[in-house]
Amino acid sequence: MLKIKPLLAKAAICFSIFLTSGNIAFADNGQELWLRKVQSNSVEVICKKKSPILSNAIEELQRGWQGKKGAKITLTISEDKSIKGDGFKLGKDGIYANTERGILYGVFELLRRQTLHQPVGNIVSNPSYDRRVLNHWDNLNGSIERGYAGRSIFWRGEKDLVVTPKDLELWSQYARANASIGINGSVLNNVNSSPRMLASENLKRVKAIADALRPFGVRTYLSVNFSSPAILGGLKTSDPLNPEVVKWWKNKAGEIYKLVPDFGGFLVKANSEGQPGPQDFGRTHAEGANMLADVLQPHQGIVMWRAFVYSSTDKDRARQAYNEFKPLDGQFRDNVIIQVKNGPIDFQPREPFSALFGAMEKTSVMPEFQVTQEYLGHSNHLVFLSTMWEECLKSDTYQKGKGSTVARCTDGSIFNQKHTAIAGVSNVGLDSNWTGHHFAQANWYAFGRLAWDNSLESEKVANEWLRLTFQPLIRDNNWEDKFVDPIKKMMLESREAAVNYSMPLGLHHIFSANHHYGPGPWWAPANVRVDWTPPYYHQASSSGIGFNRTKSGSDAVSQYAEPLASQLNDIKTCPEIYLLWFHHVSWDYKMKNGRTLWDELCYHYDRGVQQVRDFQKTWDKVEAFVDPERFHHVQSRLKVQARDAEVWKDGCLLYFQQFSKRPVPYELERPVYELKFLQTVNPMQLTGKPSSEEWMK
Amino acid sequence: MLKIKPLLAKAAICFSIFLTSGNIAFADNGQELWLRKVQSNSVEVICKKKSPILSNAIEELQRGWQGKKGAKITLTISEDKSIKGDGFKLGKDGIYANTERGILYGVFELLRRQTLHQPVGNIVSNPSYDRRVLNHWDNLNGSIERGYAGRSIFWRGEKDLVVTPKDLELWSQYARANASIGINGSVLNNVNSSPRMLASENLKRVKAIADALRPFGVRTYLSVNFSSPAILGGLKTSDPLNPEVVKWWKNKAGEIYKLVPDFGGFLVKANSEGQPGPQDFGRTHAEGANMLADVLQPHQGIVMWRAFVYSSTDKDRARQAYNEFKPLDGQFRDNVIIQVKNGPIDFQPREPFSALFGAMEKTSVMPEFQVTQEYLGHSNHLVFLSTMWEECLKSDTYQKGKGSTVARCTDGSIFNQKHTAIAGVSNVGLDSNWTGHHFAQANWYAFGRLAWDNSLESEKVANEWLRLTFQPLIRDNNWEDKFVDPIKKMMLESREAAVNYSMPLGLHHIFSANHHYGPGPWWAPANVRVDWTPPYYHQASSSGIGFNRTKSGSDAVSQYAEPLASQLNDIKTCPEIYLLWFHHVSWDYKMKNGRTLWDELCYHYDRGVQQVRDFQKTWDKVEAFVDPERFHHVQSRLKVQARDAEVWKDGCLLYFQQFSKRPVPYELERPVYELKFLQTVNPMQLTGKPSSEEWMK
Repeated sequence: MLKIKPLLAKAAICFSIFLTSGNIAFADNGQELWLRKVQSNSVEVICKKKSPILSNAIEELQRGWQGKKGAKITLTISEDKSIKGDGFKLGKDGIYANTERGILYGVFELLRRQTLHQPVGNIVSNPSYDRRVLNHWDNLNGSIERGYAGRSIFWRGEKDLVVTPKDLELWSQYARANASIGINGSVLNNVNSSPRMLASENLKRVKAIADALRPFGVRTYLSVNFSSPAILGGLKTSDPLNPEVVKWWKNKAGEIYKLVPDFGGFLVKANSEGQPGPQDFGRTHAEGANMLADVLQPHQGIVMWRAFVYSSTDKDRARQAYNEFKPLDGQFRDNVIIQVKNGPIDFQPREPFSALFGAMEKTSVMPEFQVTQEYLGHSNHLVFLSTMWEECLKSDTYQKGKGSTVARCTDGSIFNQKHTAIAGVSNVGLDSNWTGHHFAQANWYAFGRLAWDNSLESEKVANEWLRLTFQPLIRDNNWEDKFVDPIKKMMLESREAAVNYSMPLGLHHIFSANHHYGPGPWWAPANVRVDWTPPYYHQASSSGIGFNRTKSGSDAVSQYAEPLASQLNDIKTCPEIYLLWFHHVSWDYKMKNGRTLWDELCYHYDRGVQQVRDFQKTWDKVEAFVDPERFHHVQSRLKVQARDAEVWKDGCLLYFQQFSKRPVPYELERPVYELKFLQTVNPMQLTGKPSSEEWMK
Repeated sequence: MLKIKPLLAKAAICFSIFLTSGNIAFADNGQELWLRKVQSNSVEVICKKKSPILSNAIEELQRGWQGKKGAKITLTISEDKSIKGDGFKLGKDGIYANTERGILYGVFELLRRQTLHQPVGNIVSNPSYDRRVLNHWDNLNGSIERGYAGRSIFWRGEKDLVVTPKDLELWSQYARANASIGINGSVLNNVNSSPRMLASENLKRVKAIADALRPFGVRTYLSVNFSSPAILGGLKTSDPLNPEVVKWWKNKAGEIYKLVPDFGGFLVKANSEGQPGPQDFGRTHAEGANMLADVLQPHQGIVMWRAFVYSSTDKDRARQAYNEFKPLDGQFRDNVIIQVKNGPIDFQPREPFSALFGAMEKTSVMPEFQVTQEYLGHSNHLVFLSTMWEECLKSDTYQKGKGSTVARCTDGSIFNQKHTAIAGVSNVGLDSNWTGHHFAQANWYAFGRLAWDNSLESEKVANEWLRLTFQPLIRDNNWEDKFVDPIKKMMLESREAAVNYSMPLGLHHIFSANHHYGPGPWWAPANVRVDWTPPYYHQASSSGIGFNRTKSGSDAVSQYAEPLASQLNDIKTCPEIYLLWFHHVSWDYKMKNGRTLWDELCYHYDRGVQQVRDFQKTWDKVEAFVDPERFHHVQSRLKVQARDAEVWKDGCLLYFQQFSKRPVPYELERPVYELKFLQTVNPMQLTGKPSSEEWMK
């Protein structure tokens, strides 16, 4: 029995920022995330085993203990059949788990419950997915594709690979935050991967990162470029069936595992948007993925193979991932997981779930969510994504009868997957608050919580995050009514607001140009492939609007199981939130509420604008409950969002009005922009988009 | 008895544009103003006398006759004591007047009544002022100071003085429009006058202009630079008491009258904003004005001498015109008229009337209104100024007891003025619709109508202008209810809306920089004299806001007659529309409706924004009643106005909030801009200010 005493010197360095973060200088920049320093009581922690992860568990308990002063708590690693994977049991006097990670997660859960004044005893909690992974789209040069919170926390360019104490501190903070919500894996680089990722000098930095993440139970993964053998290795080909190529990958894997013995595996974007892949050599996705899987198998590594593929020739991009992958079902090794985006297109504000979920019975499939807000206002807009992910996870695929939700089709409940996993495209960067928008922290938090428990309700997630993140300095009796409730309501409504002001009623992919920020339903330069242009998706004409994916159209509906396929196919039973996704609808079509489609479209855009204005009111009213720095930061972004919402509304309605030839209902607020003006201006200039943290300086 | 037959050849040229303006190409660009071509009936016109003015009168009758087909109408110049000046009498069968102008005005009134379906017989109408003059702030280089409707119709630069047929056509159209509303004088150049104005080559062009205006009864005037004798004439001084100087002016006057025998006289801005004047030589305004008056007297010319003076040293700019001119009462020649701006500062959205009105019993005083919208959104904002001028004209000065309105103090009703006059700073430029904004035509119209009858109600003016200007091509039974009534309501509300979103509750002079467009309560560069900076005027501090002009402050109130002075002096009786003009008021001061001053200020700004949004709704609803070109033009400007209103609201409230330290009432829509952002951006860039007509191209 070992009584753990004060901090280890090394840990002390790692946490120094956290330890000082209760000071005024750090009090309110949001750097502490949902792990706010609290006034803690003394606690005696008993733990038989000793390890870096357990040291961290003990340290967290001592730092955050809110229970009885001088209480005694035991951390026990056992073999308990009620506990699965990294799960844990909270008993009256201790935490039980089968793994060290389980103990750590149990500690964080216990502390969370203490802070939230929730019961802490006799709870078993098991994760929905074995691998809960963040995908960082970080480039070696330090930029982040679709990153809106500053530059990479991992990379500064290949000329600056030296690992500094500050790096180590930051990576440790990052790992700790992940551990606190159960995330146990990080892909350190962009899926559009440079072959240079696997260069030995870069792998040395990977080792340093892995060493910093490991004490918090976070495993390291890498995205790889399928042409690495040729481009980096100098081989004549990267054909996955070529023995030299296989050998190259084997050697590279050996090199990696020597540096990072618990390396998680590879993430691959192949034959997608210009990335190389097995099809370049006449091989299938399965042949490509299996080759890498075989290479990693001896090291217990896995391959996460993305299904985000589409060619420029198919008549309906929404059908293509299914078309390419469904026939390969059964051909993949059991350490390959097919990583499928939540919807069939690309992280739009609202998509129906991808038809691939539940369709591949003999293949491990993992959902990919986007935490960074590529299509949802970047780090300017307050959009709580938990509701979007919950909507996806709880969507019923009907693949194995009623109740075959996306969650159950991917977490092993229905299909016998060797590996279960879930990925989130990270929104983390060097901004002092990590995520650009303070409320974007909630999306990081929510991804971790839903990855742990895919049946969680967003209301609970929002509730937890809000209370942890905005703990009042002074307890105020009104905090519940005047802060938590209205702000939670705002969070839970925020994604629907974003859908309303940008792409309501099933509209999708109508953003402008390559920045994916403002509206651009008109955007269709001659030299751009049509399936990258909005008119391909909205199909607006004098006859109506929407993409006919019914049996009379592209027949994408038939990729879904019955009775869903028929429900979606029939305009009368298709949910109106997906109406224009599946149907081309005449402007005068009568909606369920009696309005015409055109009027309803106008009402949705208008409602979106009003919702954001209401968010502004909601936020302004809680000024007394929030530190000034975070208050003004969020207030300022809400202003941008309010103006952006108007730009979206006007841009879309004035554009579509050219086809509908109907007036915006006169009871609604009128457009304030000219279509011609919005068509020529970059919406980011128009609304004064803050570039990362410079905005508030 | 002479029966006038078809057009004279010369007149035909002058009117050719009007004659074709019924064509589609010209139908809807607004060039026809309120003089829309109508389907006319034949009429027999009998007139004993023959003259260019009478020819035009006859021509108008024949072109616009809406009465009985083949009717006979007599034009009679007589000596009728019920008719004054250019007045007229409409009888059953003819028009009677003492002057040719009177006949012409009677014709236009008759035709207007026919179009408006008003009774046409037995009406005597006499003008309130003898001289109803437009001041054009046009520079010889063709630019217009505070002009927002394109370049000058008179000047293109001294290198291009040749008079073209197009010039003549345009000047004739301009004169006809003036005649149709009773305007009988035009000052052809900027009050900030170049000495070059009086150069002989420029005077030749003045002659050509005068010749073109004369057939419509419009007399020509010029602004003169007081230093002309030295700068243009090469004398050593411009001292008004120097005989050489007097001689120079005499010669110059002789030269002018040889070219323009009915020349009206000089307009002078002296010792004001850097302009030279008699004070440069130790002489008084009276000595300077009288010298010019003596020079012009033999020619029956007059001097309009502006009272717009203020030095940078006085503690209250609002007091200065009165301080300088009141002591000179009785010292001016009887052909000098002191031209006084409606308010004590400078054409702000709302000012109390200038204390000079009614204060100079022995001096002719004329009001100066600003038709061009220097401080009211340029040609972007729809602001019908008639209500503002009506408010001024009907303000009671109490100088000769109750009922001594500004109107009666200036039109000869109370004081025995030799000359009565009124001036409006023109909003006319080369834009095809003359005034930039189609609704700015209404301000030109309103100025003329109020100059003719200073007791007119704005409702009547708006009604006339609207019906004349937007006559429906097809008579529609709903025109009254669905077009005229709501648009008239919008017009009548528009100036109050502008006050609300820019300078409510007596705030004034809080615009930004030199462009006088957007908000700038913060604007106070170190190198600018304080009385040109907004903080001088709003005096916002933690103690409150507003300029203390009571007896305990600058005592400007005492320039007004009792009981008004006492009423204004007491915060409890001072009208709230002038509250912050006369009082420095604490943020928590209780307004009459029970709100605090701060809250009320917020409500006013918010109301202004909502009003403009309502105008947008109102306008959009009448789309079916307006030709597309004018409809979209106005619609587009209303959008700009709606965004500008938000900029004004946010800029002012966020700035003043720094002092009030109070929240914007939470029920109101929140600001969408950052103060810092508005402080650095040029509001014209922000709201996409259209530069003249380029906007719609």
